[in-house]
Amino acid sequence: MSDNSNKKMVESITPMDEDFAKWYTDVAIKAELAAYSGVRGCMIIRPYGTALWENIRDDLDARFKELGHENVMMPLFIPERLLEKEKAHVEGFAPEVAWVTHGGEEKLAERLCVRPTSETLFCDHYRDIIQSYRDLPKLYNQWCSVVRWEKTTRPFLRTTEFFWQEGHTMHETAEEAMEETVRMLNVYADFCEQSLAIPVLKGRKTDKEKFAGAEITYTIEAMMHDGKALQSATSHYFGDGFARAFDIQFTGRDNTLQYPFQTSWGMSTRIIGAVIMTHGDNDGLVLPPAVAPVQVVIIPIAQHKPGVLEAAAALRDRLKPLVRVRMDDTDNSAGWKFAEYEMKGVPLRLEIGPRDIENNQCVIVRRDNREKTVVPLDRLEQELPNLLKAVHDGLYKKALDRRESMTYSAATIDELKEIADNKPGFIKAMWCGDTGCEETLKEQAGVTSRCIPFEQEKISDTCVCCKKPADKLVVWGKAY
Amino acid sequence: MSDNSNKKMVESITPMDEDFAKWYTDVAIKAELAAYSGVRGCMIIRPYGTALWENIRDDLDARFKELGHENVMMPLFIPERLLEKEKAHVEGFAPEVAWVTHGGEEKLAERLCVRPTSETLFCDHYRDIIQSYRDLPKLYNQWCSVVRWEKTTRPFLRTTEFFWQEGHTMHETAEEAMEETVRMLNVYADFCEQSLAIPVLKGRKTDKEKFAGAEITYTIEAMMHDGKALQSATSHYFGDGFARAFDIQFTGRDNTLQYPFQTSWGMSTRIIGAVIMTHGDNDGLVLPPAVAPVQVVIIPIAQHKPGVLEAAAALRDRLKPLVRVRMDDTDNSAGWKFAEYEMKGVPLRLEIGPRDIENNQCVIVRRDNREKTVVPLDRLEQELPNLLKAVHDGLYKKALDRRESMTYSAATIDELKEIADNKPGFIKAMWCGDTGCEETLKEQAGVTSRCIPFEQEKISDTCVCCKKPADKLVVWGKAY
Repeated sequence: MSDNSNKKMVESITPMDEDFAKWYTDVAIKAELAAYSGVRGCMIIRPYGTALWENIRDDLDARFKELGHENVMMPLFIPERLLEKEKAHVEGFAPEVAWVTHGGEEKLAERLCVRPTSETLFCDHYRDIIQSYRDLPKLYNQWCSVVRWEKTTRPFLRTTEFFWQEGHTMHETAEEAMEETVRMLNVYADFCEQSLAIPVLKGRKTDKEKFAGAEITYTIEAMMHDGKALQSATSHYFGDGFARAFDIQFTGRDNTLQYPFQTSWGMSTRIIGAVIMTHGDNDGLVLPPAVAPVQVVIIPIAQHKPGVLEAAAALRDRLKPLVRVRMDDTDNSAGWKFAEYEMKGVPLRLEIGPRDIENNQCVIVRRDNREKTVVPLDRLEQELPNLLKAVHDGLYKKALDRRESMTYSAATIDELKEIADNKPGFIKAMWCGDTGCEETLKEQAGVTSRCIPFEQEKISDTCVCCKKPADKLVVWGKAY
Repeated sequence: MSDNSNKKMVESITPMDEDFAKWYTDVAIKAELAAYSGVRGCMIIRPYGTALWENIRDDLDARFKELGHENVMMPLFIPERLLEKEKAHVEGFAPEVAWVTHGGEEKLAERLCVRPTSETLFCDHYRDIIQSYRDLPKLYNQWCSVVRWEKTTRPFLRTTEFFWQEGHTMHETAEEAMEETVRMLNVYADFCEQSLAIPVLKGRKTDKEKFAGAEITYTIEAMMHDGKALQSATSHYFGDGFARAFDIQFTGRDNTLQYPFQTSWGMSTRIIGAVIMTHGDNDGLVLPPAVAPVQVVIIPIAQHKPGVLEAAAALRDRLKPLVRVRMDDTDNSAGWKFAEYEMKGVPLRLEIGPRDIENNQCVIVRRDNREKTVVPLDRLEQELPNLLKAVHDGLYKKALDRRESMTYSAATIDELKEIADNKPGFIKAMWCGDTGCEETLKEQAGVTSRCIPFEQEKISDTCVCCKKPADKLVVWGKAY
């Protein structure tokens, strides 16, 4: 490809301030994370996006396994009768599932839906394998895709098919299941903060916003660049509701038949949308080092000069055991390569040219703040991990500062409406617990309850909406 | 669980000689690799089976990536019009696909099939991203499940949904694509031999047996315990047939528009069936060390005696960096544990009891041949890798010896029928190249052509069926 056509590709990202939604899609497509497919509502996750998802998967998977969880692979299809067993669940999901009605030429006696989530499949299996308290807990997880029929779609944020993991666990007591529900929420929060550099609010969903069939839904909420919230993962406590509907019983320690207590929890490819919208800028993607497919890209400068490509290749081979490194020796110009890897959000760029080689050094440029450092070649093993950590910390701090500066408090509905109309971000306000008040705020201010945060504070004594006594702080906002 | 109920579980494997098919299913279910699901034709792959598949996946995936392949994630659905673009392909697959006709309440304008394989989806994408010879080769792979509507199903061997990887590549020249097709067949063969201890025959499928839409299909064929063949992986050369049907063109080095040349290749969870039926015995599964979820199980002997459990736990922690190790400190008897881990095919059992501790040693028992070795505790780091290698080599040799002793030659159809009727195994015989002769042999002897092996030899000058001149050696057999 010629220099010009590629420069143009980079330049054609819509600036964030001009149209945030278009900026987002531009980055997702032009950084080659995703492509549109000819299949309604479904996207293609391209090699760069898949490599990112594989790093996310491996990191999360290790955290799950460390806590004793095991992976399983359940069927893709759910027979209609199975989906219908738990009433609240089927009412939540039936309107948005894809139905298989024919196998080959044959019309099926019973329709199958493509799983929108797999509680019913896990319960059907748990009924067969849980007989005694000795069989508990069951700590299962699966990595798969699920399908929910969507009218309007956006890469990663809302697609008919999306990829995720879904954990489904069964426990002897309600207390143990509740502990698991919170434990897994904390795993997600730690992962977001430690690996994605995304600060999250932990909290409980209101009844209106909770998962279909759950008793309690916990959530982590992140704030995007434009002040909107993105629900980044959820963890649900089901009590014994599904167990009763599916007739799962075990012989307890006291020799009586009992129902086990259940949780489920999931994080999806949506989180890639959160990465884009938390860290990205007008030059494209900015990736957190822990999950970046390429952590360091080596760009040879004046690569036609003798010794440059050899030195760059030797550096690549030397750094391979330490970091995920790529060296670009294509005949594109250095300037084009800079723009390309900025677009792709590679955390560190390492430049090496004839003068650097002479001086036994290289230049390293951080993607997050463009800071340049000259590093002696024999110090790379020490400096690269420090620089990657500095990028991570810089991204995290920037995101946290943004969230703090864009979080407001409101004591009255007029205050809340004023903020919602003029200042993108989160709004803290007290709530009485009534679903009617949530609906009113949605109608009048266009905000929904994001969560009842674990860290509570007191803004006032009365509900921001109805003025009745209120002891719950809720974070409100517009959301993806 | 009490001793008795569990002993019974182990004892209830049907002996191989009594009913091989039932032995197979018993092992798959009782070793907890798979479970039946309430979904027609679909199985559940349980934690032990999933861990095995994950090891297979990671091993193969590293081999693919080493050769420059990249993973992608394509949609689950194929619109009917897309499936119909390549004629031979749609004729092969349309009769066995699952059709989605409704999304939520809405009837779809165009039916979607759940992918039975993804050539059409990859081609639809390749049309968008291949413009110049500089964009080639494209070396893509995906890990996913596919669906083919099956009437009768057996765990791993034949299920409506199964898991696999499918590689799809595009190349500038026919020669390069042919090289890729053979290269990937060799990757599969090496993987089978080096990681699964399964010897395979490499060869080409006859036109009758090749993949729908392919010009050439290569295969690796393994022989199971009962003498039947299992097609273990295939690699297809498509020429530019799909490229023409999908209108994929690129500007070549000579500035003319050209069609690229294509391959695809896949290995599926069927290979777990091959592992069971190649290495298993009447006590259950026998797993090749390279992919076994647990390579060494530590069984404390007389574990109620002081110091035993502590010594066993210390050994486990010490060996963890070296091998995949588990220690079983449940209160089941040692005898029950022996049977349990034999059933699960764990390659090495390490027993440690009071006298062993006193003598600073342990006893290691190989799963494949029950050989016992007393190993000084301070020699474990040296001896365990040797013992694992010995298990691998032993399994491979046993399988190869079996295949060699159960491979026959036939010069006439009467000879071939006599062998097919009385001696399970492979039959080498010459073939003229006529599909009619293949059909005759299927009707009269119940065998199909497994492959035209790369290593040719000359059994006679004439076709085993029609007596016309023949220069192709074909391996015939009954197959899964």
